[in-house]
Amino acid sequence: MKYGRLKQLLVGKPLASEMAHNERIPKWKALAVLSSDALSSVAYATEEILIPLSLFATAAVAWSMPIAIAIAALLFIVTLSYRQTIEFYPNGGGAYIVAKDNLGTMAGLIAGASLLIDYVLTVSVSVASGVENIASAFPLLREHKEIVGIVIIFFLMTMNLRGVRESATLFALPTYFFIGSIFVLVGAGAFQLLTGHALPKAPLIHEAYPALPLFLILRAFSSGCAAMTGVEAISNGIQIFKEPSQKNAKTTLLWMSVTLGFMFLGITFLAHIYGIIPKEGETAVSLLSHTVFGSSFFYYFVQVCTAMILVLAANTSYADFPRLASLLAKDRFLPRQLASLGDRLVFSNGIVWLSVCAMVLIIMFKGETHHLIPLYAVGVFLSFTLSQGGMVFHHLREREPGWMKSLAFNGLGAISTAVVLTVITMTKFLSGAWMVVVLIPILVFIFYRIHRHYLDVGKELTLLDVSRPIAVQPLKHTVVIPISGIHRGIIEGIRYALSISSDVRACYVELDPEITDRVKEEWRKWAGQIPLVILKSPYRSVVSPVLDYINDVLETTKDDMVTVLIPEFVTAKWWQQFLHNQTAFFIRAALLFKRNCVVTSVRYHLHV
Amino acid sequence: MKYGRLKQLLVGKPLASEMAHNERIPKWKALAVLSSDALSSVAYATEEILIPLSLFATAAVAWSMPIAIAIAALLFIVTLSYRQTIEFYPNGGGAYIVAKDNLGTMAGLIAGASLLIDYVLTVSVSVASGVENIASAFPLLREHKEIVGIVIIFFLMTMNLRGVRESATLFALPTYFFIGSIFVLVGAGAFQLLTGHALPKAPLIHEAYPALPLFLILRAFSSGCAAMTGVEAISNGIQIFKEPSQKNAKTTLLWMSVTLGFMFLGITFLAHIYGIIPKEGETAVSLLSHTVFGSSFFYYFVQVCTAMILVLAANTSYADFPRLASLLAKDRFLPRQLASLGDRLVFSNGIVWLSVCAMVLIIMFKGETHHLIPLYAVGVFLSFTLSQGGMVFHHLREREPGWMKSLAFNGLGAISTAVVLTVITMTKFLSGAWMVVVLIPILVFIFYRIHRHYLDVGKELTLLDVSRPIAVQPLKHTVVIPISGIHRGIIEGIRYALSISSDVRACYVELDPEITDRVKEEWRKWAGQIPLVILKSPYRSVVSPVLDYINDVLETTKDDMVTVLIPEFVTAKWWQQFLHNQTAFFIRAALLFKRNCVVTSVRYHLHV
Repeated sequence: MKYGRLKQLLVGKPLASEMAHNERIPKWKALAVLSSDALSSVAYATEEILIPLSLFATAAVAWSMPIAIAIAALLFIVTLSYRQTIEFYPNGGGAYIVAKDNLGTMAGLIAGASLLIDYVLTVSVSVASGVENIASAFPLLREHKEIVGIVIIFFLMTMNLRGVRESATLFALPTYFFIGSIFVLVGAGAFQLLTGHALPKAPLIHEAYPALPLFLILRAFSSGCAAMTGVEAISNGIQIFKEPSQKNAKTTLLWMSVTLGFMFLGITFLAHIYGIIPKEGETAVSLLSHTVFGSSFFYYFVQVCTAMILVLAANTSYADFPRLASLLAKDRFLPRQLASLGDRLVFSNGIVWLSVCAMVLIIMFKGETHHLIPLYAVGVFLSFTLSQGGMVFHHLREREPGWMKSLAFNGLGAISTAVVLTVITMTKFLSGAWMVVVLIPILVFIFYRIHRHYLDVGKELTLLDVSRPIAVQPLKHTVVIPISGIHRGIIEGIRYALSISSDVRACYVELDPEITDRVKEEWRKWAGQIPLVILKSPYRSVVSPVLDYINDVLETTKDDMVTVLIPEFVTAKWWQQFLHNQTAFFIRAALLFKRNCVVTSVRYHLHV
Repeated sequence: MKYGRLKQLLVGKPLASEMAHNERIPKWKALAVLSSDALSSVAYATEEILIPLSLFATAAVAWSMPIAIAIAALLFIVTLSYRQTIEFYPNGGGAYIVAKDNLGTMAGLIAGASLLIDYVLTVSVSVASGVENIASAFPLLREHKEIVGIVIIFFLMTMNLRGVRESATLFALPTYFFIGSIFVLVGAGAFQLLTGHALPKAPLIHEAYPALPLFLILRAFSSGCAAMTGVEAISNGIQIFKEPSQKNAKTTLLWMSVTLGFMFLGITFLAHIYGIIPKEGETAVSLLSHTVFGSSFFYYFVQVCTAMILVLAANTSYADFPRLASLLAKDRFLPRQLASLGDRLVFSNGIVWLSVCAMVLIIMFKGETHHLIPLYAVGVFLSFTLSQGGMVFHHLREREPGWMKSLAFNGLGAISTAVVLTVITMTKFLSGAWMVVVLIPILVFIFYRIHRHYLDVGKELTLLDVSRPIAVQPLKHTVVIPISGIHRGIIEGIRYALSISSDVRACYVELDPEITDRVKEEWRKWAGQIPLVILKSPYRSVVSPVLDYINDVLETTKDDMVTVLIPEFVTAKWWQQFLHNQTAFFIRAALLFKRNCVVTSVRYHLHV
């Protein structure tokens, strides 16, 4: 019962099913709940553009502005495209559902696999970046990035196992603080430039851009595309909006994209003009904020807000991953325990899986955002492409009112994201994207194997095709009790055996003939009515003579079943368990795959 | 059954008990079997003296000769002392037995704990040193010392699990090769000096020794004492000698000590005169051998022989550790599974434990002999002291013929080893000896806890004090079958239940009321004769309503027992197991500590 108390301490008292409800919230709250993933990506996207450029040549960073503008344009296209999805999937159109509905199961599963991978990466990347931003302000933490990251993930896991139902209001504050702090940062930076308090180190628009390898520019563009992660969240969460929910969702999506685009372009613009080059141990946002605010209070405020929204962004995966996993599990593509709500009304198994995977990634990549990013974008854009592509087929088939315009937007979205997906896969392949490219088909294969297994089992077990009832009546069975000696602990086992069958036999494996005689004598005294069979064991194995004897009994009695009754000890303290029951354990394990054999443990509870 | 085949491939076919025999062997073979641990220590002892001295000042290495002579004198004293032990413990007097017999259980357990630690360290140190000697000759291996070490330990483990019965002859060759190669090395080195082919870099005896801190000299001495490990082995193994075994053992011990002393002094003497200073990546023996032989064939021969005897030395622990562990287990100080012979007539559990611990040490200390040595000597000298001290008390009490002379030798041995033990503990405390100082009392505490537990259990379970037999007759019980639906898999479970009790009830945990009706209807069709109880679960837990219901049944029926019959699936492939039985697993776990409750698994073997 100690486990029960520990669990309650960590995750709280169980909640009744009736408490599940869908509170509908206004747009400004929904923006906070659904957009933290998207908005938070401005914390690392600029940096990701600057790193490959600056590693090539300092002058190359001139390209950061055109690249950022291209990404903003892409963001605009994707936003228009997802507004169509909201229009046609009022119950929320996640990539898995849209792709499965319109492009078939395989496409759905590919989208599902990439989303699952992405949710894990969202947690790792956001937490890693949050830790880096905090560590930029508090250098003491730089040495312990992985540990801090793991502690944060553990905290998120615990909170989510408790069920963060009150989250809407709780989310609003940090999100708007973050938006506010970035607006002030961009505003103050621009103001200082305009008033001449700061001198620009580079022009806003260069007359000539340095000639760079195309691959490098595409690579910087691919890295910057990390800014677009999480854009789809609003289209999945339409149901939490107040009525008219579709209209509200569309408006909120637009607001969100405009805010995101402004913050991303603003930061990239200032970083460029102020000549910010990311360096080891300090993020680009931190460098910029330092330049603008010095070491004032506001600098720390920006860093803390940034870290907070990143943790919130990680938190969104804690809603998305388990929800998608449960959809897959209900369709029998994942183990069925992922499909059911835990006692706090959350999908507990999914939450634990997500946390463990994210922790493993943090450890594998030493908590460095920059090393995790290449894995990130592939899945995001694959699910974008499948989802938009699914919408294209939807319009072509359904031809609902206004389908032509929607087809145009979704078609543009599908084509651009497909092109970007190709670019990302090619430019990031060697630096990590290959892992995702390898992992997605593996996951899809696993989904199919699990699915086939459940179908096969269902077919094997069904009683629907049995015309008349199978005879459900008692069967004949013998009880075999393997004993290691006579003591109080087995008396109850013998009594139980006598109560379940008229044919009870004990067997004793002889290791030392001298002891055998003593055992025989004791047995006559205590349980003389039950035959005791002495089994020789030339190889000192205890298990195999017992197995041979069971086969013997099955053959000679022609019974339907043999019950192997194993007397076991339950010790008072957990560690004492290792001092007992080894033989019981091995006999149980050996009998696991034996047919016509029932294993029964009769436990004696030790007081000491 | 696949496990069985893998095991047979690795460790071979089981051997019958009758094949256990004690072949007695002549002195020259016994020397090889019992002395590889002691003799091999010359491979690292000289180096261990030189390292602390040379790190202090190059001139300080002048002290290596006096220190080596002191160690040789100590070796002589300990040898004389152990000859007495052979005299009075003809069946082999390990430190555990001698200390327990004469100084009490506590002293015995302290000796036992230090020996167990030492055996583990012998494996780690010898393997690490062996790898270093090979890596000196083949620099390619230097990068992979830990991996090579672990592979060697794995090899030793596998060989020993097979049972290395033929070992005597197999051991003799490398041991005598090693002795031969060191004699040739020392001889050739001395010859080159005498004939003027090599010029001495330092005089044999210095006119004045540099003034050094006493602590440094004691520290170098402590490190050099690693040369004495394994000296006691012959006194433990008297029974393998041909008759007159005691006389033969005493003679062999003397030979062994003389050989060891000669090799150790010879190497230290040459290293000193040739001005050898140990350096990173090459051992002192390798440097000396290089200087004497150049890069000729003989250089490689010396290194390979050295590595081989070190591996043999590690191998001796594979006989000693499991034997001592089984003695402790028979006295109920360690888990009883360590007491029994495996099916290859070896103590398999002990062999695996030893290997795992030694591998952990190799990894922890990155395969560096020099870092492991400080942990080594404490346990060795603690067991020396307890064993000699035990002999002193033995003589004082028994006063057997000739006891006065023996008392003098053992007393001298006990006092000198006690003094050295103090010196080692003090000078090596901070560099690692503290771990052993902490670990020994912890082990002793564990021994006592295990012992008390077994005694308590014995007392609780005994039937000896019960004057008349307890009534061994059938008890009354009810069967409860928790079901999750009706399918082929539970039909057999129901039939079994009907055969073991007249009171069978099924229970179903309702999660979705719509499904409940379908389940009820199906149940009526297939098993209408058995009552089906529907359990509500407001918190969606499946386990706790079942537990409550069992309590209910126990209370209302006033039965002795409730049998919880759990239908389980056995899947065709191992991974499929994860897709089933989760609820069964949790119910089993929850029932583990429940009294008056028998858990029975009736398994349905899936074909798919």
